Amino acid sequence: MSTILVVSGSPSVPSRTAALGEHLAARLRRHEHAVRTVRVRDLPPAALLSGDRDDPAVADVVTAIERADGLVVASPVYKAAYSGVLKTLLDLLPQYALDGKVVLPVVTGGTPAHVLAIDYALRPVLSALGAHHVMPGWFVLDRHLEPSADDPFDVTVRSESAGPLYEVVDAFSTALRDRSSLLATR
Amino acid sequence: MSTILVVSGSPSVPSRTAALGEHLAARLRRHEHAVRTVRVRDLPPAALLSGDRDDPAVADVVTAIERADGLVVASPVYKAAYSGVLKTLLDLLPQYALDGKVVLPVVTGGTPAHVLAIDYALRPVLSALGAHHVMPGWFVLDRHLEPSADDPFDVTVRSESAGPLYEVVDAFSTALRDRSSLLATR
Amino acid sequence: MSTILVVSGSPSVPSRTAALGEHLAARLRRHEHAVRTVRVRDLPPAALLSGDRDDPAVADVVTAIERADGLVVASPVYKAAYSGVLKTLLDLLPQYALDGKVVLPVVTGGTPAHVLAIDYALRPVLSALGAHHVMPGWFVLDRHLEPSADDPFDVTVRSESAGPLYEVVDAFSTALRDRSSLLATR
Amino acid sequence: MSTILVVSGSPSVPSRTAALGEHLAARLRRHEHAVRTVRVRDLPPAALLSGDRDDPAVADVVTAIERADGLVVASPVYKAAYSGVLKTLLDLLPQYALDGKVVLPVVTGGTPAHVLAIDYALRPVLSALGAHHVMPGWFVLDRHLEPSADDPFDVTVRSESAGPLYEVVDAFSTALRDRSSLLATR
Repeated sequence: MSTILVVSGSPSVPSRTAALGEHLAARLRRHEHAVRTVRVRDLPPAALLSGDRDDPAVADVVTAIERADGLVVASPVYKAAYSGVLKTLLDLLPQYALDGKVVLPVVTGGTPAHVLAIDYALRPVLSALGAHHVMPGWFVLDRHLEPSADDPFDVTVRSESAGPLYEVVDAFSTALRDRSSLLATR
Repeated sequence: MSTILVVSGSPSVPSRTAALGEHLAARLRRHEHAVRTVRVRDLPPAALLSGDRDDPAVADVVTAIERADGLVVASPVYKAAYSGVLKTLLDLLPQYALDGKVVLPVVTGGTPAHVLAIDYALRPVLSALGAHHVMPGWFVLDRHLEPSADDPFDVTVRSESAGPLYEVVDAFSTALRDRSSLLATR
Repeated sequence: MSTILVVSGSPSVPSRTAALGEHLAARLRRHEHAVRTVRVRDLPPAALLSGDRDDPAVADVVTAIERADGLVVASPVYKAAYSGVLKTLLDLLPQYALDGKVVLPVVTGGTPAHVLAIDYALRPVLSALGAHHVMPGWFVLDRHLEPSADDPFDVTVRSESAGPLYEVVDAFSTALRDRSSLLATR
Repeated sequence: MSTILVVSGSPSVPSRTAALGEHLAARLRRHEHAVRTVRVRDLPPAALLSGDRDDPAVADVVTAIERADGLVVASPVYKAAYSGVLKTLLDLLPQYALDGKVVLPVVTGGTPAHVLAIDYALRPVLSALGAHHVMPGWFVLDRHLEPSADDPFDVTVRSESAGPLYEVVDAFSTALRDRSSLLATR
């Protein structure tokens, strides 16, 4: 069992990206990880924009990131890159906040033309934060995410995206499990 | 005479990046342009993080960008990219908000190791916003910016950076002038 | 009238990218520019891979780039970036070989998922070469390029791509014309 | 013991990057891995530039990559990115040639201003090739590489670079060892 934080960075409420985060959290819990989800948008705006790590809610998330073995970082694509909302949180983290951690980038967007935003925009930032392993991620088309009928905080992932998405999520789960058994033997 | 908006995106107050923005605005005014400076950090945090274009202060800046002939976009480097603060403003702009505009990217940072953040991180976002011409920009080392003794909102740029920085700023001014005389003859 | 070099960097012969280069050259000639096309693949392989600027064929192209007012740089997408073939030529150019020039990037690829390769991979390299103005470029899907029935070196561009592609090409032509009239008055 | 291929992509002979590749290969051999080095520059130029996988020397390297558990990919920085020489080899590999492999990117350059070429230029290409794990890499300043007095194919790495460089190389070795023991237990 590993500790995982799912961070989603959409400026919208409700948000398909946030709902996807909850959906992936549920899947990872079924893999027996301890998973917490954080919507950056729920943190105090003034603290985020001024980079205030002393704000209690911000400090709580920074500590949760510090303690997590793994992170899912989910963002919508805006202007060919990750969202500014997500970046305000990443900006206030200590320089090597992701040192030793396994990270799964997940990006949502309206057009396949933005697929490379994962590897050219988000991944370099996660690398700069010292992540041990930024796993292969996945780009999910907005139209492959359908609001769940009975749970406003869940989504159904259409089959075109579900296969490859669950594959990278399960590979992330396996990587965390492997890492935790390796660290146990040292 | 062209209309120029200088947008700076540092989360800090006071900020070397914002002071540099004022400094460049003063230079551009001496070239007889109409220049306004905007610190993203001064806009209402909740409006920025929720992408609320109806907020009056945000709407005012969006309109100012729409009306400007040229933009100076100034950001500190955080985590090998532009700041999240800056990106929250860019995110809420209409898709082709920079269509037809001349844009000068200026980035400040603590180490020369981050120079390429201009061309690999900021420039693609400005291109995605439809900018007509993203000019060659400049990266200024923090330690080349010295607080001005008599004006807390100004900086002195040390000579190592001043030469190439003023060169790109003056080229930006010339490009605006050229564009305005061309448009006048059509 | 401006002098334009169209450089195409596909490793294949025949190549859709090279045929597209010829097609755009023909259009630019109709705009009364002096246009030459170069397929990097036709240059001596050993000279390219060793960066030998003294090779007569290579030296001829380097001089042609030096003398050109504008460049069209066309590449297929391979592995989410421009081709290595194209890059071998760019690598042996002098550091600021594109100083003062107007450049139009055009990229071809099999899937829209690679659209951002223009702005995140090719454009930063063209900026590093000192280009005065890297214009908004265009990504053309391979399947929108149909071999011409009567000319093996030409292609027909399907209407879905033709509109926006010709728009950026014509904007490039206009930018060159504007620049040449501006330089004439100085 | 893992099988490692060190691929270096400098157009120069002799080359500091290639010598660094040999130097790292020697270190990895002392960690008891089976290491082979390949200089892309030694492959037949015409085959590389035409993407000819049937050429025997090229086919041999493609097979060696296929069989390797880990790859060190070493490139000088040219024009703010990896070399074209290196990319010609990467271009002709099958689409997911790095699937399941651990990869260490190492880049050499004349100025710290090019450090981000690893994360913004090389890493996205290695990700596009399906690499399981692109490890944190390192950028080595040319002037920290001194030709070895007694072996033209070796270099001495100056202490400023040696510490962090050997750290990422040893982490790469550990990651390979971990992966091989994990795969053995499945």
